[in-house]
Amino acid sequence: MMRLQVPGYEFLSQGSTLHYSFSGSGVNVLSALARFGHTGSLVSTLPDNPVGAAAVAYLQKLGISPSYINRSGNYVGMYFLENGFGARPSRVTYSNRLESSFNTAGEGTYEFEEIAKKHDVVHFCGITLAMNDSVRQLMKSFAKAVKDNGGTVVFDCNYRPSLWGEGGYEKAKSHYEEMLYLSDIVMMNEKDAMFVLGMKTEKKERQEQVMDLIPEVAKKYEIPVIAGTNRSVNEDNTHSLCGFLYKKQSFTFSKTFTFSVYDRIGAGDAYTSGIVHGELERFPPEKTVTFAAAAGMLTHTVVGDTLMSSENEILRAMTESVDDIER
Amino acid sequence: MMRLQVPGYEFLSQGSTLHYSFSGSGVNVLSALARFGHTGSLVSTLPDNPVGAAAVAYLQKLGISPSYINRSGNYVGMYFLENGFGARPSRVTYSNRLESSFNTAGEGTYEFEEIAKKHDVVHFCGITLAMNDSVRQLMKSFAKAVKDNGGTVVFDCNYRPSLWGEGGYEKAKSHYEEMLYLSDIVMMNEKDAMFVLGMKTEKKERQEQVMDLIPEVAKKYEIPVIAGTNRSVNEDNTHSLCGFLYKKQSFTFSKTFTFSVYDRIGAGDAYTSGIVHGELERFPPEKTVTFAAAAGMLTHTVVGDTLMSSENEILRAMTESVDDIER
Amino acid sequence: MMRLQVPGYEFLSQGSTLHYSFSGSGVNVLSALARFGHTGSLVSTLPDNPVGAAAVAYLQKLGISPSYINRSGNYVGMYFLENGFGARPSRVTYSNRLESSFNTAGEGTYEFEEIAKKHDVVHFCGITLAMNDSVRQLMKSFAKAVKDNGGTVVFDCNYRPSLWGEGGYEKAKSHYEEMLYLSDIVMMNEKDAMFVLGMKTEKKERQEQVMDLIPEVAKKYEIPVIAGTNRSVNEDNTHSLCGFLYKKQSFTFSKTFTFSVYDRIGAGDAYTSGIVHGELERFPPEKTVTFAAAAGMLTHTVVGDTLMSSENEILRAMTESVDDIER
Amino acid sequence: MMRLQVPGYEFLSQGSTLHYSFSGSGVNVLSALARFGHTGSLVSTLPDNPVGAAAVAYLQKLGISPSYINRSGNYVGMYFLENGFGARPSRVTYSNRLESSFNTAGEGTYEFEEIAKKHDVVHFCGITLAMNDSVRQLMKSFAKAVKDNGGTVVFDCNYRPSLWGEGGYEKAKSHYEEMLYLSDIVMMNEKDAMFVLGMKTEKKERQEQVMDLIPEVAKKYEIPVIAGTNRSVNEDNTHSLCGFLYKKQSFTFSKTFTFSVYDRIGAGDAYTSGIVHGELERFPPEKTVTFAAAAGMLTHTVVGDTLMSSENEILRAMTESVDDIER
Amino acid sequence: MMRLQVPGYEFLSQGSTLHYSFSGSGVNVLSALARFGHTGSLVSTLPDNPVGAAAVAYLQKLGISPSYINRSGNYVGMYFLENGFGARPSRVTYSNRLESSFNTAGEGTYEFEEIAKKHDVVHFCGITLAMNDSVRQLMKSFAKAVKDNGGTVVFDCNYRPSLWGEGGYEKAKSHYEEMLYLSDIVMMNEKDAMFVLGMKTEKKERQEQVMDLIPEVAKKYEIPVIAGTNRSVNEDNTHSLCGFLYKKQSFTFSKTFTFSVYDRIGAGDAYTSGIVHGELERFPPEKTVTFAAAAGMLTHTVVGDTLMSSENEILRAMTESVDDIER
Amino acid sequence: MMRLQVPGYEFLSQGSTLHYSFSGSGVNVLSALARFGHTGSLVSTLPDNPVGAAAVAYLQKLGISPSYINRSGNYVGMYFLENGFGARPSRVTYSNRLESSFNTAGEGTYEFEEIAKKHDVVHFCGITLAMNDSVRQLMKSFAKAVKDNGGTVVFDCNYRPSLWGEGGYEKAKSHYEEMLYLSDIVMMNEKDAMFVLGMKTEKKERQEQVMDLIPEVAKKYEIPVIAGTNRSVNEDNTHSLCGFLYKKQSFTFSKTFTFSVYDRIGAGDAYTSGIVHGELERFPPEKTVTFAAAAGMLTHTVVGDTLMSSENEILRAMTESVDDIER
Ligand SMILES: [Ca+2]
Ligand SMILES: [Ca+2]
Ligand SMILES: [Ca+2]
Ligand SMILES: [Ca+2]
Ligand SMILES: [Ca+2]
Ligand SMILES: [Ca+2]
Ligand SMILES: [Ca+2]
Ligand SMILES: [Ca+2]
Ligand SMILES: [Ca+2]
Ligand SMILES: [Ca+2]
Ligand SMILES: [Ca+2]
Ligand SMILES: [Ca+2]
Ligand code: NI
Ligand code: NI
Ligand code: NI
Ligand code: NI
Ligand code: NI
Ligand code: NI
Ligand code: NI
Ligand code: NI
Ligand code: NI
Ligand code: NI
Ligand code: NI
Ligand code: NI
Ligand code: NI
Ligand code: NI
Ligand code: NI
Ligand code: NI
Ligand code: NI
Ligand code: NI
Repeated sequence: MMRLQVPGYEFLSQGSTLHYSFSGSGVNVLSALARFGHTGSLVSTLPDNPVGAAAVAYLQKLGISPSYINRSGNYVGMYFLENGFGARPSRVTYSNRLESSFNTAGEGTYEFEEIAKKHDVVHFCGITLAMNDSVRQLMKSFAKAVKDNGGTVVFDCNYRPSLWGEGGYEKAKSHYEEMLYLSDIVMMNEKDAMFVLGMKTEKKERQEQVMDLIPEVAKKYEIPVIAGTNRSVNEDNTHSLCGFLYKKQSFTFSKTFTFSVYDRIGAGDAYTSGIVHGELERFPPEKTVTFAAAAGMLTHTVVGDTLMSSENEILRAMTESVDDIER
Repeated sequence: MMRLQVPGYEFLSQGSTLHYSFSGSGVNVLSALARFGHTGSLVSTLPDNPVGAAAVAYLQKLGISPSYINRSGNYVGMYFLENGFGARPSRVTYSNRLESSFNTAGEGTYEFEEIAKKHDVVHFCGITLAMNDSVRQLMKSFAKAVKDNGGTVVFDCNYRPSLWGEGGYEKAKSHYEEMLYLSDIVMMNEKDAMFVLGMKTEKKERQEQVMDLIPEVAKKYEIPVIAGTNRSVNEDNTHSLCGFLYKKQSFTFSKTFTFSVYDRIGAGDAYTSGIVHGELERFPPEKTVTFAAAAGMLTHTVVGDTLMSSENEILRAMTESVDDIER
Repeated sequence: MMRLQVPGYEFLSQGSTLHYSFSGSGVNVLSALARFGHTGSLVSTLPDNPVGAAAVAYLQKLGISPSYINRSGNYVGMYFLENGFGARPSRVTYSNRLESSFNTAGEGTYEFEEIAKKHDVVHFCGITLAMNDSVRQLMKSFAKAVKDNGGTVVFDCNYRPSLWGEGGYEKAKSHYEEMLYLSDIVMMNEKDAMFVLGMKTEKKERQEQVMDLIPEVAKKYEIPVIAGTNRSVNEDNTHSLCGFLYKKQSFTFSKTFTFSVYDRIGAGDAYTSGIVHGELERFPPEKTVTFAAAAGMLTHTVVGDTLMSSENEILRAMTESVDDIER
Repeated sequence: MMRLQVPGYEFLSQGSTLHYSFSGSGVNVLSALARFGHTGSLVSTLPDNPVGAAAVAYLQKLGISPSYINRSGNYVGMYFLENGFGARPSRVTYSNRLESSFNTAGEGTYEFEEIAKKHDVVHFCGITLAMNDSVRQLMKSFAKAVKDNGGTVVFDCNYRPSLWGEGGYEKAKSHYEEMLYLSDIVMMNEKDAMFVLGMKTEKKERQEQVMDLIPEVAKKYEIPVIAGTNRSVNEDNTHSLCGFLYKKQSFTFSKTFTFSVYDRIGAGDAYTSGIVHGELERFPPEKTVTFAAAAGMLTHTVVGDTLMSSENEILRAMTESVDDIER
Repeated sequence: MMRLQVPGYEFLSQGSTLHYSFSGSGVNVLSALARFGHTGSLVSTLPDNPVGAAAVAYLQKLGISPSYINRSGNYVGMYFLENGFGARPSRVTYSNRLESSFNTAGEGTYEFEEIAKKHDVVHFCGITLAMNDSVRQLMKSFAKAVKDNGGTVVFDCNYRPSLWGEGGYEKAKSHYEEMLYLSDIVMMNEKDAMFVLGMKTEKKERQEQVMDLIPEVAKKYEIPVIAGTNRSVNEDNTHSLCGFLYKKQSFTFSKTFTFSVYDRIGAGDAYTSGIVHGELERFPPEKTVTFAAAAGMLTHTVVGDTLMSSENEILRAMTESVDDIER
Repeated sequence: MMRLQVPGYEFLSQGSTLHYSFSGSGVNVLSALARFGHTGSLVSTLPDNPVGAAAVAYLQKLGISPSYINRSGNYVGMYFLENGFGARPSRVTYSNRLESSFNTAGEGTYEFEEIAKKHDVVHFCGITLAMNDSVRQLMKSFAKAVKDNGGTVVFDCNYRPSLWGEGGYEKAKSHYEEMLYLSDIVMMNEKDAMFVLGMKTEKKERQEQVMDLIPEVAKKYEIPVIAGTNRSVNEDNTHSLCGFLYKKQSFTFSKTFTFSVYDRIGAGDAYTSGIVHGELERFPPEKTVTFAAAAGMLTHTVVGDTLMSSENEILRAMTESVDDIER
């Protein structure tokens, strides 16, 4: 998507300039993995006009290969971002999301078989499931192709209530289940289990709900790795973030990071990237989950939706006390 | 529409900021007339979100009353502008035009009868005719209501080939004819007569074509006032502009202005505004047409789509030699 | 006034650009009330030059009608703002305040009788009393006209020591008393009562002083509604704000809000606007005073002197926990 | 003065930022002479507040010593600049000129005797004569002190009709005459001779008027050196500039430079600086007048009011063809 | 190199911000060829620090593969650019050129044999010859490897007098000759032949010198294709550009383009890119040379050193009259 | 040095603009002392090109005399600054430090004897000792000349491990000792004593180490005044700063300031400036050390490396509670 951000803390009705960049769940994860030394391509559609060209240039800058980007349709999905401050929340206003080139690309647009053969891991985002039937169909076909070719399917549930509308959980359930059956690494939390999948627990605490439900999900859908976060906004406007990783019937938790926030968007995708990187590099679970949580923390301090830290910088953020300047 | 302009002369794929403003044919004409001392309202639809709120604030700043702006739908139509320089043309890329709140507003959105009763003059833009059946229908109903209530209908043909697509002239003809029959002041040129209305002439020169065809149009559709311009881009990147006014079976031409160009967008609407102002103020035709042409010229020197000069500044531009500084 | 702000945290002697906007106590209150759904006009004077034109455009953008703005005189009052940070206070430097068009407008400039007839509520700011005899005279005449025509007089004491100079309290007292006798809603605190009106109390705590003195003021000057705030700057650079409302011999206090601050200017006027809105809408006192305090809090988070939040956003800030993003 | 310029080509009512700098006839001349290797001080008054401090910092940056700047009063005179483009003239709007610290500084502010003793040349600007009696008196006292101490008095007539108002020429004449009797180098043109000094000529062409009147002025007021320019704005928005120098009963003319213009303000002061530098360095008259004209030309290409070119760059501009890049 | 440009037309001593980008002869040619549909890699060295990382990101954005960029050394070569205007030339100030990572990379840094095997065409720039012995040696080894592997060597003479210093032509000659013997496509003009190669001609006109000397060069050094331009700066600040192509004993000339200039840097490399593209695509010589010249022209209108136009936009610039807006 | 800072919180690889200024330990101390009413000159070397000219202009703006700045060599040392946020540290990347004009200036560049005669106090920075033999030699000669002429030598140890490399402490020791023997006021802390000078203590707490070692240093090297700070970064990203002053065998400590941080660079030099000012003005030790610590604190709140507060503002920061706005 094209992110159109009012600089500083003005509202759209106060300012006259916007800062733009391009992001999206897939872009963020691919870019982070590129920064960690992997190579990857975005499978998407962008219009063959100057806006699409700017998006491609931006993705290239992030280290993402444009080889599988189809150029057709008319629009890039957009969102306007007005930064909040303290007691005043940020505001996100979408434009042209449903009519984007990605959402209007028809069957046969992508060569999933070929792509699946050439890649070890493919990341899917649950937001796509909320778009339309055609896109949902493409997504599932792609996941099946990956599965059939022995690749790893990463699926981030990312359920967004405002996109599914009223009665959304029922509409969403079967689509989510189809994806979960195909998935090897799933990003989710206790709310997804309770609301989207309709599972029950008698626990009241989030942590307990997680420990109750996630193993059940893993078992039912045969998912080798499930990871997620417990995030909270503190009274002094700091955030706290604690990650979990469930694998081989066992939970691992990161330490709880508490930190000041500059731009919270993208933290979830950074966490996902950390989990995927840890799994690919066969980090021990403690290292993977803390690496992912530290990646999520650092992305709260970075302009834009995309993790910009190197593996080394994340490792340092896991273990060292804060320096104020590195010379 | 929301104008999203890359500052300076960079391409979208080079820059990272956009300058935004809100415009549109109606906005430009209303704002110019407000600057000349008239009062007026925009009849349109904008979304009830921060982008719509920014648009309303901008219109108010231009002196336009928002009383008849309906707040519904999802989007503001947008265009990206990359400034050209010399041999390199500017590029305009539209986004979300067809899905805008204006274009998706249904029947019964506006109280045309009430509005028509309260206003002396209403301006319509031919671009609207290219959108969809529903909007076309609303436009014609409004024009009829104005006519029925004794108001003046201003219609700017503004035929845009890219919007009508292949076979566009045939598709457009009947819609244009309906509007022309209802109109009191029409902005058009010889190309509209030949291509949209299918009229014939044996003349080869533009000026002669104008003198041959415009009287025929005025007669056939019973239009009291027709005005238009002859515009050209010179080799040294200056533009030339000469206006005509046809009224009471007689042509009046402005002097030909030749001038440097900073931002050509909006010049046509500034010319329209000058014609409407001249007619409302009962200027003699020579003054009206030269005032309109000078308004068009000055709008080539102004950032944005909207005339920003006062009546006095335009009068001075008609008659005086160029000052370099006014202290 | 024209606010000329150095962007970021540079001093005037470091930077080279200024961000400008237009504000003032009346502008801020009118704009906030417009945002809450009321309509209103500024009664003031601005020069008939490009600076005055920019001010008018800005006021229109804020939703304020310029119908009663007289265009004469030479200057717009200005202030330069250099943002402080933490232990370093912000600096405000005035320019051209005394010689502004507003302050040099003579008798007969405004049609107070006509304006008073057409409006239900008029807001007056105590800063005006500090300017000069002529302006003071105009202010009192206007307040009398409002009173005579059955309108509501809102008066914000806003005593600024630096404007009245040495022996200021004595100079100010009679002017303040004249206004208080005419007022229906008064914004003040215990300091105004003690220093400007010379009242005595044996209490030492601010809260007790308020509860001791405000009823006395209400009684002596026959003021139906008095409201004010208790504000403090905390060690960690957060601010705390608690409002009071005295009406029908009874005090109501808001909850105490504690919050991070981006731009504190305008918070007092936002509080005033909340009180006026609550009274006009006949909110119960608890709702009025908490609404006003939340409006004051949010204005600490907003760029510029003027409240930019909708009624809904303020209501949410009163009752909900902080969201970090609204999508 | 503080120059507050809207960036690019927007009007004040369109933009939201200003670019500020500090200038004035004396500042411009001193800064240019500093760039040519001389040292000099500004004799003026600035307020002891952050605006005054920013002005001092800026003057220091230009190489001007602040030793004789008095810090008192309240304001720095200001002007807003909106850049014109092509057929649209630039607009200058003054603020706070008459009430500035410089214009309200009283008798005894400056130690003219001491300053005169320590300096060889002092530059005076005719704009000061238009301010008020007190400032005029200070100016004449200073000029007399310079004269009495054997220094060179430079006087730039710089008659500004808008400052003197109606009947201005009569009001101004005696003040100008007093200064001319004291001057050694005078900047003026034929209009000053005809309108301010009331001299007569039967010539119609500017060049002939110059050749007729300037020798008469030199004789009557016993002025060793008179210099000035013939400037014109061409149809293609280029400017032309030709300088003259009258000395020892003989005229010398520069070649006529024709050039594109970026920011014309300050060109007159750059020309003055070139003449003064040529005289101080005892350049032959041909070199002096062409150096001054080239300095004036280059200042048309420079942002701000102040010449920024070195002596070498000006010498190159006199003699060489235009390079496009210097590496 | 890192280009650090003062925005607008200020000098470094006036401004406080710089606009940065990364370029260089090789970067410009590779980026242009990527835009024309080819793929390519930069063979260079950049430091392993945030400046090097920013350079890599920028190159990726331009569509250049970083696979053969070595990360070592300390610096990126830099240049500061102050834009000239009209009579005032632009100024380029180099920093850290000689100490850059590229210039300090030692023998064995690059795998020339491998790279040569994988690429059809390699572009070399004569500026490199002026740096130091080590870099010169690397360059020649690389060219030999390309030659030995059947690749095409493109060599742009790009002789820069200021880099070679006094007696530069003698110092340079043998290095240039070595490269010319290895080259298949050479960019040069008559001056290179006369001054660097020491050839003689009795012709006085540039065009005649070209026609006299280039065939001699082609013969002596056995170069299949030689191309170059005749460039001039006109009095009205437009530039003119006419290209030539010498191939199979025959000259082809482009039409002479005359055009306004926004940022002339990079035009030579754009011309080179056009010639290389034409040869790779086997365009007829007329098309190749005019395509190259149009590419050079358009790069004068583009911010930065790098051609940003597509093949289609260049083809349109060759044949069509100028549009002012493309919608 | 030239400071090239990415605005806001972007990385170099995200942004496209830099904010530049000029600083350095000597610049910062001189500028602060100028702000406190002293006059001083920088003794350094800058290139005779536009970058050097911009540096000179900047120093002048800060109130520093350029009389002893030699203009030769090629470069100004530079550093890039990417601001950190919270858990993400700032990053400083040097460029061209070793090859700068300052570091390549040879023997005989400066007239130390003359300068020493004309100045009471000269400040030296330990960073210079890490550069090269030639610069070290110049530094020591200068210090000797100051000593010989009865001036006060101020020496700030400022040991930077990354500049000295491996085995740095041994390399540095003798150079530091030479300077310490010549010094009258030394800025250092317990680490310098332990690591650079190789002194031993059995204490574990920093405060105790200071009290153990500093008197030993003062005695051994006969240093009348030693001052330094104890600085820490707190968990909530605030910093704490406590200064000490050792003089006449007695320690004085400032109160511990805890404060929010905007731009920490330059705080050490501000502290040094406060100590030097206190000594020059013969403040009592309590006042000197608290003044210096408050100066250090305020410089954490100021953009750039250089203290921008007046003596009065620092005095207020020592004693008063925090104001939020000064009108
Ligand atoms: Ca972020
Ligand atoms: Ca996410
Ligand atoms: Ca325009
Ligand atoms: Ca139009
Ligand atoms: Ca505020
Ligand atoms: Ca207030
Ligand atoms: Ca200028
Ligand atoms: Ca002048
Ligand atoms: Ca270019
Ligand atoms: Ca080139
Ligand atoms: Ca700082
Ligand atoms: Ca330091
Ligand atoms: Ni703004
Ligand atoms: Ni995802
Ligand atoms: Ni968070
Ligand atoms: Ni850019
Ligand atoms: Ni129209
Ligand atoms: Ni035009
Ligand atoms: Ni700055
Ligand atoms: Ni008020
Ligand atoms: Ni507050
Ligand atoms: Ni703007
Ligand atoms: Ni002057
Ligand atoms: Ni001029
Ligand atoms: Ni500037
Ligand atoms: Ni090249
Ligand atoms: Ni050129
Ligand atoms: Ni950016
Ligand atoms: Ni130091
Ligand atoms: Ni600190």
